[in-house]
Amino acid sequence: MNEDKKVLLIKCPDEKGIIHKVSGVLLSGGCNIVRNGEFVDTDKNIFYMRTEFEANGLDVENVLSELKEILPKEAEISIPSSRKKRIVVLATKEHHCLSELLSRNYFEEFNFEIIAVIANHENLEDFTNRFGVKFKYISHEGIKKQQQEAKILEILEQEEPDFIVLAKYMRILSPNFVSKYKSKIINIHHSFLPAFIGANPYRKAYERGVKLIGATAHFVTSELDQGPIILQDVAKIDHADNIFSMKKISQDIEKLVLIKAVRLACDDKVIINGNKTIIF
Amino acid sequence: MNEDKKVLLIKCPDEKGIIHKVSGVLLSGGCNIVRNGEFVDTDKNIFYMRTEFEANGLDVENVLSELKEILPKEAEISIPSSRKKRIVVLATKEHHCLSELLSRNYFEEFNFEIIAVIANHENLEDFTNRFGVKFKYISHEGIKKQQQEAKILEILEQEEPDFIVLAKYMRILSPNFVSKYKSKIINIHHSFLPAFIGANPYRKAYERGVKLIGATAHFVTSELDQGPIILQDVAKIDHADNIFSMKKISQDIEKLVLIKAVRLACDDKVIINGNKTIIF
Amino acid sequence: MNEDKKVLLIKCPDEKGIIHKVSGVLLSGGCNIVRNGEFVDTDKNIFYMRTEFEANGLDVENVLSELKEILPKEAEISIPSSRKKRIVVLATKEHHCLSELLSRNYFEEFNFEIIAVIANHENLEDFTNRFGVKFKYISHEGIKKQQQEAKILEILEQEEPDFIVLAKYMRILSPNFVSKYKSKIINIHHSFLPAFIGANPYRKAYERGVKLIGATAHFVTSELDQGPIILQDVAKIDHADNIFSMKKISQDIEKLVLIKAVRLACDDKVIINGNKTIIF
Amino acid sequence: MNEDKKVLLIKCPDEKGIIHKVSGVLLSGGCNIVRNGEFVDTDKNIFYMRTEFEANGLDVENVLSELKEILPKEAEISIPSSRKKRIVVLATKEHHCLSELLSRNYFEEFNFEIIAVIANHENLEDFTNRFGVKFKYISHEGIKKQQQEAKILEILEQEEPDFIVLAKYMRILSPNFVSKYKSKIINIHHSFLPAFIGANPYRKAYERGVKLIGATAHFVTSELDQGPIILQDVAKIDHADNIFSMKKISQDIEKLVLIKAVRLACDDKVIINGNKTIIF
Repeated sequence: MNEDKKVLLIKCPDEKGIIHKVSGVLLSGGCNIVRNGEFVDTDKNIFYMRTEFEANGLDVENVLSELKEILPKEAEISIPSSRKKRIVVLATKEHHCLSELLSRNYFEEFNFEIIAVIANHENLEDFTNRFGVKFKYISHEGIKKQQQEAKILEILEQEEPDFIVLAKYMRILSPNFVSKYKSKIINIHHSFLPAFIGANPYRKAYERGVKLIGATAHFVTSELDQGPIILQDVAKIDHADNIFSMKKISQDIEKLVLIKAVRLACDDKVIINGNKTIIF
Repeated sequence: MNEDKKVLLIKCPDEKGIIHKVSGVLLSGGCNIVRNGEFVDTDKNIFYMRTEFEANGLDVENVLSELKEILPKEAEISIPSSRKKRIVVLATKEHHCLSELLSRNYFEEFNFEIIAVIANHENLEDFTNRFGVKFKYISHEGIKKQQQEAKILEILEQEEPDFIVLAKYMRILSPNFVSKYKSKIINIHHSFLPAFIGANPYRKAYERGVKLIGATAHFVTSELDQGPIILQDVAKIDHADNIFSMKKISQDIEKLVLIKAVRLACDDKVIINGNKTIIF
Repeated sequence: MNEDKKVLLIKCPDEKGIIHKVSGVLLSGGCNIVRNGEFVDTDKNIFYMRTEFEANGLDVENVLSELKEILPKEAEISIPSSRKKRIVVLATKEHHCLSELLSRNYFEEFNFEIIAVIANHENLEDFTNRFGVKFKYISHEGIKKQQQEAKILEILEQEEPDFIVLAKYMRILSPNFVSKYKSKIINIHHSFLPAFIGANPYRKAYERGVKLIGATAHFVTSELDQGPIILQDVAKIDHADNIFSMKKISQDIEKLVLIKAVRLACDDKVIINGNKTIIF
Repeated sequence: MNEDKKVLLIKCPDEKGIIHKVSGVLLSGGCNIVRNGEFVDTDKNIFYMRTEFEANGLDVENVLSELKEILPKEAEISIPSSRKKRIVVLATKEHHCLSELLSRNYFEEFNFEIIAVIANHENLEDFTNRFGVKFKYISHEGIKKQQQEAKILEILEQEEPDFIVLAKYMRILSPNFVSKYKSKIINIHHSFLPAFIGANPYRKAYERGVKLIGATAHFVTSELDQGPIILQDVAKIDHADNIFSMKKISQDIEKLVLIKAVRLACDDKVIINGNKTIIF
């Protein structure tokens, strides 16, 4: 995105005339709307809007206060900073998702920078270091979950990430951990959720004899594998595939689904609507 | 669509404030915007908009004249009638696309009614009649293309279709014919255009050894297979497929691509932009 | 398939030399192998084979007895009749899968003939009759499941179908019914199994906020939605889709997944391996 | 693959009994067939076979000579070495395909090792070095194509690669170069061939207004973009995509199509059949 491009995000009770009001404020501020998305959740009567506009030196605070005045009181209005999003990656042993993230980060392809990788195993350290990214090894062995998480949380407090990306991090985060980073933790689950929730989805898929396997990127909530889904994809398998080959096929989907989901989130294109997402 | 829902279509030179103006007119008319799509072709500086709104007994003519006043002179503005679109189907011998159209028509699934089927072979007559749809056999044999087309045009003039759907009609329409129904003829081509333009795309695909075959729904222009593309899809094939099996695989895609394209057109979701389409 | 083409199906404990033995018998019978598929389930040490060959007037009984002699005792060996498979369709109210089956049947596209449609509602009667196929209305209202099923079973006993196709038949078949037609009942489930097992999968998918919806063709067993899967496919949806639009999108997948599964079964390309299928 | 697994590849004029003969030789050698694929090109009457077997210390030369005796004279029979395939990568400036290859190589995921990267620009040098792979910068500027190619050929002669992978190498190789590495050069073309042959396929796709874009991995022959296709895939785009976003979408497909094609080739699963491939 150009530096003079801004994104306006609105969530408020639906009523007639919102688009007219919002576009009026932007117009009087001299902004040009580049891309506009609206959605009304008619079940809950909530209006969602994402507007990309050329800011032309606009006074952001001014716009926000003008919008606050004319929109319903309950409205949530924001214009996120246009600096790159800060990401901390949590990993375990598998490299495919981490590799995708580090490579995109190295070439500065997307609107994020990876500021640290934390893992509960050491095998990805050399690889991460080759990309000049900080690697922290925080084992889960011999200590309680709470203690291990405390060490991770300490780093997160220092780094102040916009998003925490679980790149095949194979530990379940405690509700306490999750509550500290609500709507900020993105996970890749190696199945087509809600099929094969929990551990060993490849094995479960193999045993069920499905003909497609999938991957799901979702926000993490305190309920395992139940958070709002951002993106999903699948690939065909057949009777000749075993758990090993299914894993290989799935990993190619996982990394692409994860990187696309992270990219959408970092471009402020994902809004959480209860246990669902709106993707603009 | 509910009967009180209307669609507003706008095409005009881009300038600041169009959304604000248009939403203002609808708001003052008491309409509620249900769904909104905008697109700016930045190459040509053209603004496109499609707005679905609850009309609530609105005076359509009034809205159109108000919009004409406040939008740039060159603006093309329309609110299509919400009656079902009238379709005439042209076919040859293959039944899969026709069958899909007739079945959807029989169950009144979409926003169209098929008022006649015209074919240059007789084999689909019984099938068409079973669905209670008029069938006209107009052979191309022993007469000039111009004569055959004249007979078809005569029927079209009586039936006044909104769209003419070529459901595997295997004759090339003359420029004269096409010019009479500009932007109203939808064809399904049995390849992933622009690959394998012209005759025998299955054979060409077989000979080239491609690993995917496709289908393309597009508007017909006077240049063969060059009109604006509405929709495309593909399916995997492998070295063991021959022309016969490729045809079977392709036909399943063809009928779905065609029916989806026809549905989009009949819902006023397709706008032609030069040799491209905008799909809202 | 040409009339002189036959299919040989073998299931037996795996051991060295089976392919050599089987190909030897066919060779000495003067048959030419056209297409050959093998699979070893290494978990269970079972060998599966499907061989398509030009029979050239072969004495089928001879071949079977020769094979029985040289293969392990437990071997299951068959050469299915090459006449068209007889299908009875069970439906409820939805037409899209039935329509696909009837249209393919009318044009004699595949290796099956539909000999009757049985439904627990009347609305599809006119449509079915238009294709010249027998329609039996057997309501489930006011009678016990056992009684209703008895009426259906009576018809099935007369018609002797090779396969019973549940084309969106919305009643759960009793274990008694299922046991009478083991490995012969093919169902289309309107979700990507094992996600959204049971009733209302569209609603469940909507509420979970998935980004893909799917369809699954499977053999029916006494456990609901747990039978061996033949084929699955998915389509993308987004936050703007509601249950109605999801249904429309899903139906297009359902009918194609079902017809492809039925076609595979009728071409003797599906072998059941426990709760899985092998697709040759 | 386990070290004791071998692959047998056969191409010969089709005749009755080949499978029987080949399986007989393997059986008498004490080998167990793990996976078997056959294909007959009925247009040309050529039989192709790929057999994966547990070698159990088999004398490869013995097997080959036995097979030579019993198969037609024209038969091409080989049992490729089971050492990892040696790959030299040619690149220009884009990193996505190279990055995929280097990452897979680093983690030793597949049956290949990358022994050198050669590029006509310098920007990928640091990245390549981070993975401990040799990088050679051979500019095309200020010298004739023949001279630049001579420098590349010199390296190739030293390195003796099994495959040369063009990872978005944006120079056309001369017929002389290609002829030296017949059936050994794998290219990724950034379109769905045969659509948009030659330069600037993203731009051409944008201008044609297609709704899907694709990528094609193929062997390089002296005719531009005409070599045997190994693998293809596509992704959806819409009217809002411009050349920049299409490029991003396409690159995700390109790298996966290329890595899968390279993997297939290195596993000896690709056989060239004229201007087509057979993928076992």
